[in-house]
Amino acid sequence: MGPTQKADSREHTLGRMLELLETAAARDASLIVFPELAFTTFFPRWYLEDGALYQYSERSMPNPAVQRLFDRARALPVGFYIGYAEQTPDERRYNCSILVDCDGKILGCYRKVHLPGSVEPRGGARYQQLEKRYFAYGDLGFPAFRAGADWRHAIIGMMICNDRRWPEAWRVLGLQGVELVCVGYNSAAYDPNGGATEDAALRTFHSKPVTQATAYMNATWAIAVAKAGDEDGSGLIGGSCIVDPTGRIVAEAETLADEVVVADLDLDLCRQGKDRMFNFAAHRRPEQYSVITERAGIIEPTALSAIATNLSEARR
Amino acid sequence: MGPTQKADSREHTLGRMLELLETAAARDASLIVFPELAFTTFFPRWYLEDGALYQYSERSMPNPAVQRLFDRARALPVGFYIGYAEQTPDERRYNCSILVDCDGKILGCYRKVHLPGSVEPRGGARYQQLEKRYFAYGDLGFPAFRAGADWRHAIIGMMICNDRRWPEAWRVLGLQGVELVCVGYNSAAYDPNGGATEDAALRTFHSKPVTQATAYMNATWAIAVAKAGDEDGSGLIGGSCIVDPTGRIVAEAETLADEVVVADLDLDLCRQGKDRMFNFAAHRRPEQYSVITERAGIIEPTALSAIATNLSEARR
Repeated sequence: MGPTQKADSREHTLGRMLELLETAAARDASLIVFPELAFTTFFPRWYLEDGALYQYSERSMPNPAVQRLFDRARALPVGFYIGYAEQTPDERRYNCSILVDCDGKILGCYRKVHLPGSVEPRGGARYQQLEKRYFAYGDLGFPAFRAGADWRHAIIGMMICNDRRWPEAWRVLGLQGVELVCVGYNSAAYDPNGGATEDAALRTFHSKPVTQATAYMNATWAIAVAKAGDEDGSGLIGGSCIVDPTGRIVAEAETLADEVVVADLDLDLCRQGKDRMFNFAAHRRPEQYSVITERAGIIEPTALSAIATNLSEARR
Repeated sequence: MGPTQKADSREHTLGRMLELLETAAARDASLIVFPELAFTTFFPRWYLEDGALYQYSERSMPNPAVQRLFDRARALPVGFYIGYAEQTPDERRYNCSILVDCDGKILGCYRKVHLPGSVEPRGGARYQQLEKRYFAYGDLGFPAFRAGADWRHAIIGMMICNDRRWPEAWRVLGLQGVELVCVGYNSAAYDPNGGATEDAALRTFHSKPVTQATAYMNATWAIAVAKAGDEDGSGLIGGSCIVDPTGRIVAEAETLADEVVVADLDLDLCRQGKDRMFNFAAHRRPEQYSVITERAGIIEPTALSAIATNLSEARR
């Protein structure tokens, strides 16, 4: 999807999504992947009061504002992945995605685990990244779902944006035998506040080997879909792509605008990796991985030596 | 390094390594990375009796057969990473690597965790992959080491070959703040027994995004070094490369023969990733990763549902 401005109406954006849905269905797609927070602009870049957040959030799914998308999808019939801001009855918000099958049933729900940004706004900055403020951490893990015949009984997992840079997310799905991972994203193309860091070319580049290597290492198809282009002066990378289980890009977007990219996913291509090189049961060594679940942050070797010294001193 | 044939003498191979050492030192290298099992041919492709394995194994390090390399390195002075088959006093073997600093001291040792191949030879096959037969699983974890001034006090980790395809190995090093990962490898370019699977181009390709993406996701430099070319009718991929902490290849080998590739490693380039995008303490969510250390193999969603059903039936 191309950009969605703050001033764009919900109705206008939904109209664009319906057009994309029609185009994809006409090209024989049965599963259509929309990006993260697809119904609205990427609002975490703005500092907003609680009340202002309502317009960006969905209190149920489907709901009247999006019903047309669900109805048309079921009529075609196609299913879809879509990301949105979920507002729960107890007033918590999650950065969420769902898989809607070709019968219009919600096959699975995922709530984003790897929230970037900060809780407190950056003083004096025009653009923020306030996902840690607006959203609670996902509490559903990384569930994989067995699809029905319309999607060839694939085992499908979901991620959202930043998750795809965390190999743990891929591996938790890989350990469920995932054959397709759908990821929607809104990734900044550069620092919109003018900081001299990475540029759009480097950031677009990053998105690809991350998706390719982790798809390969888990022997799964991956579909990574951007909301791209300029949203109210803040640039988002494109680079939407479909990656096969050997890590090759088989189709990719060429623009930063609304665009449909289609591929036929042969799930049997997952077997070579899952049965041989990445036969987890034969080759993984979990007893060597304990630090991955024991702590979040870094302890450098010198610090560990210092701890050992302190311990031995404490024992004297 | 180019290939090493079964018939090549130890002396001949060591001579090639000394030449590479001299060339690299003349180009101002201070750390030289040799491949996995660098002193010999990749012998796990052959079915060998225990006695025949002695000629491929090192019972101490250094030892008279390799002393010249250590002496010349210290004189220059340069340090190095090298992989070899370690034979312990109690007759166990490990696929091992060491870091030797510019003073000739062994800074650290690593024993390969992710052993590919099988214990039993494949009947009727000309070429084997018997690492699981010849070697014990590494029992040292994935330790990182703080280097001295010669290597700019870098935190350095080691992997061997297949390890680089396992994101867990990178992450355990990443959680120690690693700034440089050295990997030596011998990776088959195709099935030498003629099976119709992946070809050399695809396998050479695989090695790159794996190294690039995992270096990026751990904000570390990586040096991946092949033993390449045709060893007694079995092809090995090349693709040796030096990757920066944003995942870009900054130097790479162009041949399958002995070749020196040099880069200057600015360790400060690790900071952007470690402090921001991949600030582990701020952004990792270990409570969601437990399955990574709880089991080795895959449990598919349907199997899990079956377990749940079984459990609820058991409770009746």
